[in-house]
Amino acid sequence: MIRFLFSTAAVAALALSVSAQAATPTAAEARKIHDGVLTLDTHLDTPANFGRPGWDILDRHDAAKDGSQIDYPRMVEGGLDGGFFAIYTPQGPRTPEATRAARDGALVRGVEIREMVARHGDKFGLALTADDAAKIKAQGKRVVFMSVENSYPMDGDVTLLSAFYAMGVRISGLAHFKNNDMADSATDKPEWGGLSPLGKQFVAEANRLGVVLDGSHSSDQVLDQLIALSKTPVILTHSGCKAVFDHPRNVDDERIKALAASGGVIQVDAYSSYLIETPKNPEREAAMAALMAKVGARNKMTEAQRAAFLAERNAIDAKYPVPKATFEDFMNHLNHALKVAGVDHVGIGLDFDGGGGVTGLNDASDYWKISQRLLAEGYSREDLAKIWGGNVLRLLRAAEAARAPAD
Amino acid sequence: MIRFLFSTAAVAALALSVSAQAATPTAAEARKIHDGVLTLDTHLDTPANFGRPGWDILDRHDAAKDGSQIDYPRMVEGGLDGGFFAIYTPQGPRTPEATRAARDGALVRGVEIREMVARHGDKFGLALTADDAAKIKAQGKRVVFMSVENSYPMDGDVTLLSAFYAMGVRISGLAHFKNNDMADSATDKPEWGGLSPLGKQFVAEANRLGVVLDGSHSSDQVLDQLIALSKTPVILTHSGCKAVFDHPRNVDDERIKALAASGGVIQVDAYSSYLIETPKNPEREAAMAALMAKVGARNKMTEAQRAAFLAERNAIDAKYPVPKATFEDFMNHLNHALKVAGVDHVGIGLDFDGGGGVTGLNDASDYWKISQRLLAEGYSREDLAKIWGGNVLRLLRAAEAARAPAD
Repeated sequence: MIRFLFSTAAVAALALSVSAQAATPTAAEARKIHDGVLTLDTHLDTPANFGRPGWDILDRHDAAKDGSQIDYPRMVEGGLDGGFFAIYTPQGPRTPEATRAARDGALVRGVEIREMVARHGDKFGLALTADDAAKIKAQGKRVVFMSVENSYPMDGDVTLLSAFYAMGVRISGLAHFKNNDMADSATDKPEWGGLSPLGKQFVAEANRLGVVLDGSHSSDQVLDQLIALSKTPVILTHSGCKAVFDHPRNVDDERIKALAASGGVIQVDAYSSYLIETPKNPEREAAMAALMAKVGARNKMTEAQRAAFLAERNAIDAKYPVPKATFEDFMNHLNHALKVAGVDHVGIGLDFDGGGGVTGLNDASDYWKISQRLLAEGYSREDLAKIWGGNVLRLLRAAEAARAPAD
Repeated sequence: MIRFLFSTAAVAALALSVSAQAATPTAAEARKIHDGVLTLDTHLDTPANFGRPGWDILDRHDAAKDGSQIDYPRMVEGGLDGGFFAIYTPQGPRTPEATRAARDGALVRGVEIREMVARHGDKFGLALTADDAAKIKAQGKRVVFMSVENSYPMDGDVTLLSAFYAMGVRISGLAHFKNNDMADSATDKPEWGGLSPLGKQFVAEANRLGVVLDGSHSSDQVLDQLIALSKTPVILTHSGCKAVFDHPRNVDDERIKALAASGGVIQVDAYSSYLIETPKNPEREAAMAALMAKVGARNKMTEAQRAAFLAERNAIDAKYPVPKATFEDFMNHLNHALKVAGVDHVGIGLDFDGGGGVTGLNDASDYWKISQRLLAEGYSREDLAKIWGGNVLRLLRAAEAARAPAD
């Protein structure tokens, strides 16, 4: 009798589990599950807005009007608990003077991130360890990790990574759109064949400090070498799948498998021209380049100048239209990565405020839609917890554990 | 008739002026005049407290209980509008590893100053130019300038001064208690005979950026060379007069005159053992050194550990008493400096939270007493405005004007 009862209960539990996975949850059910997991985006370019005159992260902005995609109200709306706020530096000339200016600018950007958290300490918390994330969420606050996108500010002195670490940086990339003194870029001609000797020093230094290495924007060879050289698993904070669309910023299946096999993670981005084919249009590119040259540093603009800039940009878009990727295109990349790497090795890094954003997934208020779709496709709450934060935090913990005891 | 009227008015005005200077104002009158001028202390070591667990600048502290001398409530009580919040680094080993740790620590201290202002943006404002000070005061806020006390964090790379400048630093000293790679200390054996070649590079770099050079803690030869080499006038942010008490941290009359003749300023400190003779007591020094070695980094203490530390320190003071300077001793140095240099070349830098403090002038609530005394001695409101802020702001303006246009 007792055995029969157990058996029935087991069968019932199994049936429930299967049906829970099979049935599409309602929007409310999906949202509830989404809100229950820790949700982190590993590449937020929002700090570029922190120095904008009049821009306040506590205000709700409209991406169509001011171009910004992340702020506190929309993080709450979309159920984004936080993420890695990037210290981004455009690749400039590889001269001592320019590298030094990049260093100073990157340090100030780091200060601005810390100031943002200090200014809004009731709504944001600075995370310095993997464990901090859940604690900050439990306090009802948003989680602010810090990351470096381009190592260019440290090209003059690789020891500077410890200064960025001391400020709070826990993930660092190597290159951006162009090669630098440390590594080849995915979107430039090979110069070092991957990492330079300085870049290899940087890898050792990141391991010593406990900084997770980020291969996004670097060449395939850099990724291979990071996987081979790094003592702890590597991340791609915002990358796509080459098998879905062949772009240098996307990674082929073999490399995604090698990354997963080494314990690493690919975080899928929502950058339209990396997700789908965007036909070349020299006239459009010339018009856009002229506009960008005219406006200068975007975070120095007044709101009026920004509105004028966006109006001109919209006019260029209207005159030379380009196809815009959709939520479905993003999901194609995400699902492909999940199929190739498995749920333990995939995450989310949309590149909002840095060029990311597609139709239907265009600002922080949209994050929860990803959970809704993944649940509809049969992924469990546990899967979501890994994809949204568990995987990247596993990498942070590995880096913390391998950190040299002296520091 | 009209001429007679003018003449009478002029005589009356003159008589009023003379009597205003001669009559001792009441405490209320003195306080009113004090509150009407911009009051800056050029050496506040308070940032060392910013990382103290549980310490909040908005709380009113008791110097006798927790050792701290500056906080918002006491700044209001004493009428201190603000000052230069120092990034202080103790002189450590002159090795690449130690210099690098000093660099990282100093940058983090800079971040903590910026975070403090960001956290309390309704009560404090960051000042980046001389003109900012009056604007911030007019907003009803306290003025936070940033300074560097010891250049040791930059010994490995003199170009780092631009990073500190970018963070907000506008005054930088060279050495502290010991010689470093840039300069000889006033309290160490001569090594460079003043500035080292690197120190001379630092002077040029400070001039290029628009950073005022601070000779306090550096040797007399360093001061001479700063005056000779710097393109803009030099400051002593917290120093005393050798003619009043012969101590290496104090400056002789000839040098005070040379500093004044070059347009510079001496800001008088309230550091007891620099103001008056403190007999050597090896047993006391050994007991104090043992205590300091035991407690380690003071800003890492919990409040309980700090209370225990202060209790032990008080016990040492009771067992081996030392004479403590008084408000009168401080005024002797201040008046001597005023006599030798004149009101255009003297200011206030008490070294609170860094060892400063004498009987009767021991925390921020006491600042206005200096004005009360100076008024009683016949100094005018205009004199006070120079001493309390006008002089140091003149040096900042000179540095701003001489700043290389490229940056």
